[in-house]
Amino acid sequence: MKLMHWLFLGIVLVIVFIFSCSPKQETFRGNPAYDSLAVKMYSTALSSGQAYSMLTDLTTNVGTRLSGSPGMEKAVTWAKLQMESLGFDKVWLEPVMVPHWIRGDVEELTVVGPETKRLTITALGGSRPTPKEGITAEVIEVQSFDELKALGETARGKIIFFNRPMDRSLITPFEAYGGAVEQRGKGAIEAARAGGVAAIVRSMTMRHDDVPHTGAMRYNDSVPRVPAAAISLVGADVLSQLLAKNKKVTVNLKLNCDTLPDVESFNVIGEITGTEKPNEVVVIGGHLDSWDKGQGAHDDGAGCVQSIEAIRLLKSLGIKPKRTIRAVLFANEENGLRGAKEYAAKDRQGERHIAAIESDGGGSTPKGFDVESDSLAFPKIARWAYLFDPIDADNIKKDGSGADVGELFKIGVPAIGLRVDPHRYFDYHHSDHDVLENVNERELELGAAAMAILAYVLAQEGI
Amino acid sequence: MKLMHWLFLGIVLVIVFIFSCSPKQETFRGNPAYDSLAVKMYSTALSSGQAYSMLTDLTTNVGTRLSGSPGMEKAVTWAKLQMESLGFDKVWLEPVMVPHWIRGDVEELTVVGPETKRLTITALGGSRPTPKEGITAEVIEVQSFDELKALGETARGKIIFFNRPMDRSLITPFEAYGGAVEQRGKGAIEAARAGGVAAIVRSMTMRHDDVPHTGAMRYNDSVPRVPAAAISLVGADVLSQLLAKNKKVTVNLKLNCDTLPDVESFNVIGEITGTEKPNEVVVIGGHLDSWDKGQGAHDDGAGCVQSIEAIRLLKSLGIKPKRTIRAVLFANEENGLRGAKEYAAKDRQGERHIAAIESDGGGSTPKGFDVESDSLAFPKIARWAYLFDPIDADNIKKDGSGADVGELFKIGVPAIGLRVDPHRYFDYHHSDHDVLENVNERELELGAAAMAILAYVLAQEGI
Repeated sequence: MKLMHWLFLGIVLVIVFIFSCSPKQETFRGNPAYDSLAVKMYSTALSSGQAYSMLTDLTTNVGTRLSGSPGMEKAVTWAKLQMESLGFDKVWLEPVMVPHWIRGDVEELTVVGPETKRLTITALGGSRPTPKEGITAEVIEVQSFDELKALGETARGKIIFFNRPMDRSLITPFEAYGGAVEQRGKGAIEAARAGGVAAIVRSMTMRHDDVPHTGAMRYNDSVPRVPAAAISLVGADVLSQLLAKNKKVTVNLKLNCDTLPDVESFNVIGEITGTEKPNEVVVIGGHLDSWDKGQGAHDDGAGCVQSIEAIRLLKSLGIKPKRTIRAVLFANEENGLRGAKEYAAKDRQGERHIAAIESDGGGSTPKGFDVESDSLAFPKIARWAYLFDPIDADNIKKDGSGADVGELFKIGVPAIGLRVDPHRYFDYHHSDHDVLENVNERELELGAAAMAILAYVLAQEGI
Repeated sequence: MKLMHWLFLGIVLVIVFIFSCSPKQETFRGNPAYDSLAVKMYSTALSSGQAYSMLTDLTTNVGTRLSGSPGMEKAVTWAKLQMESLGFDKVWLEPVMVPHWIRGDVEELTVVGPETKRLTITALGGSRPTPKEGITAEVIEVQSFDELKALGETARGKIIFFNRPMDRSLITPFEAYGGAVEQRGKGAIEAARAGGVAAIVRSMTMRHDDVPHTGAMRYNDSVPRVPAAAISLVGADVLSQLLAKNKKVTVNLKLNCDTLPDVESFNVIGEITGTEKPNEVVVIGGHLDSWDKGQGAHDDGAGCVQSIEAIRLLKSLGIKPKRTIRAVLFANEENGLRGAKEYAAKDRQGERHIAAIESDGGGSTPKGFDVESDSLAFPKIARWAYLFDPIDADNIKKDGSGADVGELFKIGVPAIGLRVDPHRYFDYHHSDHDVLENVNERELELGAAAMAILAYVLAQEGI
């Protein structure tokens, strides 16, 4: 080649190099107005948010809200009134039949041999009662279903004590919960399959005290329906130590819980209607029902008041989204998921749900969002992460979203869960510790603001 | 050019493009062994950490630890014994003279006109007492020192009520604290300068209840030393409403606190001595003293047990750092900083401090580290951020570190503060709410693990 050609080649190389060194792609920043809106939303929520005062009202004046209970009925009225008084564009109820299990007033586990001792238990939600005189039987302790199966005939006639703890060493408590909760959900089935007469399950918590944690359990039609209860961690340790020291430990278990016929309840729904595409909907929600323990403050009073508050915040800032933002307070998440199933199944002529955001991990400090969606939708949600950087909650990742919005995900709607600091959640979960006192106002309000911001940008920009 | 030349040019362009598209620089990952060590440290801390059990012991069996009090004396013995029984390589005490202020048993603020009402207060640390019969005077409320100055002669003879709240709208509570705390620190000086006879200061908290929050205040020699007390938020609101409704509100303030001569106390120090460079030291610490409220659990029992636990964790994993890692439990952070000043001033022949890490923001979930250093040292600390990603605490930024290690920063040592979730801290701070019950075990243990990891990599790799 001639000198000119080399020169030409050199210049081209330099140009290519310069271009290839420059940033490949500008970091996505959306509409700059969103940045200032987000910052304003945080400061407004912190200075004059109403999620905490709503939660105070709900927990104090309504209380717990087990499906089918007077508390849940009261909560439906309360929530509808809240939305109406805050001037939502539309507010309505959607009926749904829910299970009606009642706890009763007898929950007793008494060691009767070789010594006498009372241990603290609570019936698992859905359990059958014992006979009035209780079930008196020997206890056998297992750490897993496999261990139970391996016992063979030894388990017959016994009360099966499932005592595998949540794995404390895991960084994420939800993972530790996931690794232990089958004992609560399927313990009664597995106990019956092995010939056992009842199931006692170590409470799903890492907080070591004498407070039992309830929760849902299942039966199936292939084996007898045996009663099932959760035992406090203190109680579980006492029982385990007794079993380690004695060949035979006999207990009497008494429960007078009962399952009544299903009753009608409601999803409570209110929205700010979209100005341009009213038929395209972003759902924000939580579940209005709770267990009959504590006050159902974190689970999921928090998610309900945050959903209402998110819309109130948008309205208070004079924001009119292009698409509809709809708060849905689902009925019966805890023991049936009937509200979410009903909401997802309903024919909503012409409506299209573009995303559904749920807060059901408690009212602690927001850390980010967990997204269940196809691979096309995920980056369109995750690109908004920078809006949550001011509160250090900009971690948007693929993970389980929430039980209620999970039903919408099943029909193709991207489902998103507000992720919060997880370490305290199972201290409170489904127990008498789940009270307002354990919710921090600032943390709760920031969660509402984060939901409002994400719902708004999705309503403006779509997915 | 001929075809061959174009072909050649094309190939060269493709090669250049490919190279320029590849990552410009590998992200810093240090020694891969550090990754697995960090993960192991987290799971070990969560499953078998002892910070929480140490804090239980300290708060329950020692209690509060105000400088000069029997509690602080007991704490010195307790901490030394802890370090010795855990097999630290060296444990010793370094004496330091500390202020000896005592609260007394009379803390009363009574509205005497136009109506009679008792309001909840507590003396600020360092305040002079009132005469035995108290100070009876009119109250005047101000939001700022400027407002007080503008009052001129009106303020003379009055009790000055500083009632500017922490700004709730700020995302960072420490910023809100910074914007209000001058009222507590300098309120008595400014009150006296304006001719006032005492200072009443709105408690430095955003938790709205009837619990007052104490803290340090100062005098100077140019104006009279007038008594100063913190009033609960409920009390502050009542007083403010009274003032809004009445031209003249008169109160009686009684305090019998007192300042006694300085007494000897100690910094408690224990280390794991470096194997290769024992004279190069990484300090980890907290302050052993506390206010005489609650149990001094978050402030700063947490930082003390985390510092001890960090070394225990390293030892339990069989780790022998190249440089020395030294736990320093400083005396008298709250009302004098004498321990930190003494530690920094001491001639330590041949020793070089390469970094100092403090935990004094409470025992909540770790979020990252705040670094005070020159611009050369900062990136050498921040490069380890990835090790804290598993617990979502990988945000290392330039910001205020901690009061005690700040004294080391003044003599050129990079100072680092463990940053934790901040939202609950001022709910507890310097008040009866600062008790063990409000510390979460998992959050506390993770903070200890984070300190251990950062101290270790700095001890291995230097700065």
